[in-house]
Amino acid sequence: MGRWEPDARGRLEQAALDLYLERGFESTTVAEIAERAGLTERTFFRYFADKREVLFSGSAILKELLVQTALDAPSAATPIEAVAAALEAVGAVLQQRGQGAQKRRRVITANAELRERELVKMASWASALADALRRRGVPDPTAALTAEAGIAVFRVAFERWVQRPKKHDLPRLIGESLDQLKAVTAGRS
Amino acid sequence: MGRWEPDARGRLEQAALDLYLERGFESTTVAEIAERAGLTERTFFRYFADKREVLFSGSAILKELLVQTALDAPSAATPIEAVAAALEAVGAVLQQRGQGAQKRRRVITANAELRERELVKMASWASALADALRRRGVPDPTAALTAEAGIAVFRVAFERWVQRPKKHDLPRLIGESLDQLKAVTAGRS
Repeated sequence: MGRWEPDARGRLEQAALDLYLERGFESTTVAEIAERAGLTERTFFRYFADKREVLFSGSAILKELLVQTALDAPSAATPIEAVAAALEAVGAVLQQRGQGAQKRRRVITANAELRERELVKMASWASALADALRRRGVPDPTAALTAEAGIAVFRVAFERWVQRPKKHDLPRLIGESLDQLKAVTAGRS
Repeated sequence: MGRWEPDARGRLEQAALDLYLERGFESTTVAEIAERAGLTERTFFRYFADKREVLFSGSAILKELLVQTALDAPSAATPIEAVAAALEAVGAVLQQRGQGAQKRRRVITANAELRERELVKMASWASALADALRRRGVPDPTAALTAEAGIAVFRVAFERWVQRPKKHDLPRLIGESLDQLKAVTAGRS
């Protein structure tokens, strides 16, 4: 093992995001990322399996937060309230990441393979959220429906937020979007 | 050009689906599909670019139906009513395909690459549906939200239907699922 480097992971993430935006994801090498971060390739591979993982390694933690928050909601909470709490908890973490989340989004939008990977990630979140609702005793199809619709709302709120992350508050945008979904479905006669 | 073969496309599709289920998508060759259908490889390539296209060539037509039905909804229709009409129109086509749609689903579920391609397809439907709503004068974020939530509802309804396509009516399941979404969002205090 090499010597300890303060916040090596964070420095590698920031260097990678900047390089992906400057040169494109495809054209950037791990050697360049490590150099920009002032670290070695060996240190890079201690944290990430490959350069794509820099963009997706945080997803498992967010999914776990999503599931745990849904499970921890008060037992009196309705399915949509449990989902709202879960989405807002994830939103709060992304809000803190601010510019990093925005840069990540721009990198992913620019690359078809990364866009597909992001779709797979969101589908896996929806599936995990539906499972959490089932563990709360919510039957299907309500569990699947609430989870899938919740993730749809999250995506729309995230797209709005990422345009202007300093101006908007992501958890609040998620709440507003859920209110809008309620208003939209009320338009069904 | 070879001689005309009655319903060559349909025969190729059926042969391909059966082989994908029997041998796996990866292990099936175009030569085997053509042979099973009693046609030549040359005929296969007149209809499909490759063996994956057999599963996805119908998607563009369904997307066009989705968009046109949303655009053609009465001007007094609310956004969710326009989306409901569009989803039910697609549902009616899939209902007619019956067992073919069910087989296709089983093939896709068994293969990670095909599952990703299916996610990309559904994301493209959601995007096209949102554009149709904007052309109806629906502002964002309502347009994006209604379209994304509508596609989420469609997916849940489709999953229920595909388990028992003879028992259930897909357009009706879509309508029921939209009602359930309305009930779910009403649970938001």
